[in-house]
Amino acid sequence: MKITIVGLGLIGGSYAKDLRKLWATSQIMGVDSNAEHARQAVDLGLVDTVLDLDAACSIADLVIVAVPVNVVQRLLPGILDIIQEHTTVIDAGSTKVMICDVIRFHKKRGRFIAAHPIAGTENSGPSAAIEGLFKKKVSIICEAEKSSEDALAAAKNLFTSLGMRITFMEPREHDKHVAYVSHLSHVSSFLLGQTVLDIEGNEKNIFNLAGSGFASTVRLAKSSPEMWAPIFEQNSYYLKQALEEYIEHLQKFHRHLVRNETQEVKSIMQRANEIRRVLEGIELKDKESDTPISKEKITTEE
Amino acid sequence: MKITIVGLGLIGGSYAKDLRKLWATSQIMGVDSNAEHARQAVDLGLVDTVLDLDAACSIADLVIVAVPVNVVQRLLPGILDIIQEHTTVIDAGSTKVMICDVIRFHKKRGRFIAAHPIAGTENSGPSAAIEGLFKKKVSIICEAEKSSEDALAAAKNLFTSLGMRITFMEPREHDKHVAYVSHLSHVSSFLLGQTVLDIEGNEKNIFNLAGSGFASTVRLAKSSPEMWAPIFEQNSYYLKQALEEYIEHLQKFHRHLVRNETQEVKSIMQRANEIRRVLEGIELKDKESDTPISKEKITTEE
Repeated sequence: MKITIVGLGLIGGSYAKDLRKLWATSQIMGVDSNAEHARQAVDLGLVDTVLDLDAACSIADLVIVAVPVNVVQRLLPGILDIIQEHTTVIDAGSTKVMICDVIRFHKKRGRFIAAHPIAGTENSGPSAAIEGLFKKKVSIICEAEKSSEDALAAAKNLFTSLGMRITFMEPREHDKHVAYVSHLSHVSSFLLGQTVLDIEGNEKNIFNLAGSGFASTVRLAKSSPEMWAPIFEQNSYYLKQALEEYIEHLQKFHRHLVRNETQEVKSIMQRANEIRRVLEGIELKDKESDTPISKEKITTEE
Repeated sequence: MKITIVGLGLIGGSYAKDLRKLWATSQIMGVDSNAEHARQAVDLGLVDTVLDLDAACSIADLVIVAVPVNVVQRLLPGILDIIQEHTTVIDAGSTKVMICDVIRFHKKRGRFIAAHPIAGTENSGPSAAIEGLFKKKVSIICEAEKSSEDALAAAKNLFTSLGMRITFMEPREHDKHVAYVSHLSHVSSFLLGQTVLDIEGNEKNIFNLAGSGFASTVRLAKSSPEMWAPIFEQNSYYLKQALEEYIEHLQKFHRHLVRNETQEVKSIMQRANEIRRVLEGIELKDKESDTPISKEKITTEE
């Protein structure tokens, strides 16, 4: 099988690592507009060769598009134009409404699978690629009914082979939920980082006073602006709502603080404590995925 | 040496674990108003015996007070009343202004060390106690000049024996900095948890869509309201300021989103990215402290 990965960063690179192990006889071609990333991807053995977009897509059986969501939106119609009749194209974008919109009337719409693997770290670039990143994670597929049966089957086979669970959602539903569960977390973390940096001119104070709790809360503030700015822009409709609700909750909490209403402050925290149950499930998923991916294991799951 | 630990939770229990290893011949007495926690602490071997507050403090050489900050404030004067002339009393509260205030004119002020070990997790109770929790962490001492020389020396010896670095600060300076670096992180996390729970009535959606990023950002929302409500109350003066600045940053970000000002959104994130450098230092500290505490190691550090 000929696989083309467009975008050789954390997600594209991690796909490459797993696919090389999974389908050892495949040829993996890479595309990246960043020449340094392209070189690194070859050096790291993520891809066999680096080609330009048209060359790589026109001969591939499977194209994985793992670039920032605005770039997915820009490149996707052209990729569909150039692929062969049997080729499957899968994206990995964190937003789905605008991406699905741009190829809604494309004659090869059926070859495309709108997907969002819920996996990643705050790091980026080819060197951030992780083997087994997708194992035990969820892959969301949107508008599955608009994909051809064989393309959908190919995508499902890919995801389950990587050890993922598949969930189906509509693009709007997807974008709304991820606004709360993922995008808002990033905003809260970026702005917390900024607030603390603004006040603590002397970083030594942050270093001395920050514990692992602070590190955990601002971890996402390390994320790539190149990747996240387009996500926020594309999902601004739902993210604005989520952010407004978050700000309202913060303001309410602030009022309780000002009025010394300790019981109300405590109630808010008790309510928030319910997140523990949800997190235990997530941590369990993460724990299970700690074991490295193995070909044997995957084969039995197929 | 006779050691009394008042409050057998995460912090008190972790002190007990390390001190038993460090000073094997010591007798460790515990005090806890929660009978179940007291029983657990004995069962877990954290303390040799559980006594009532007066009995345990009146015969101790060292008293560690590791209860919520409002309880520290309430109990501290009585503890100083009852201790022997040579006894050292050390607290572990996350606020320092109000705690230092309440014993400002106590005749035994010199016996008290106002301390804040920057260590902990989001868990609580005796079963959350961790061996080596304090290793490579920072202990802040406030108003060191108000402590007697020998009491200060005893506290310093304790902290360095546990592998901690010591930093000195004034109570107001301490409370202001921790408002930003620690307390605000907790507020942002509690309220993020609440916002997401409020919207996502169906927890299955959170579970499916949440990745490790979300888990990391809301981890602190699991923290104990009993411990944190009094901290927020005691530090409300500085926490209100920090929260106001955080809300302002979020509002500014929201305006950029509304106006589709992607470049400004990106600039904010680029600025926040600078936190990476600070976090790398913290993660390094944490990594170093992963190795279990060993008596030999500590002895050489003394």
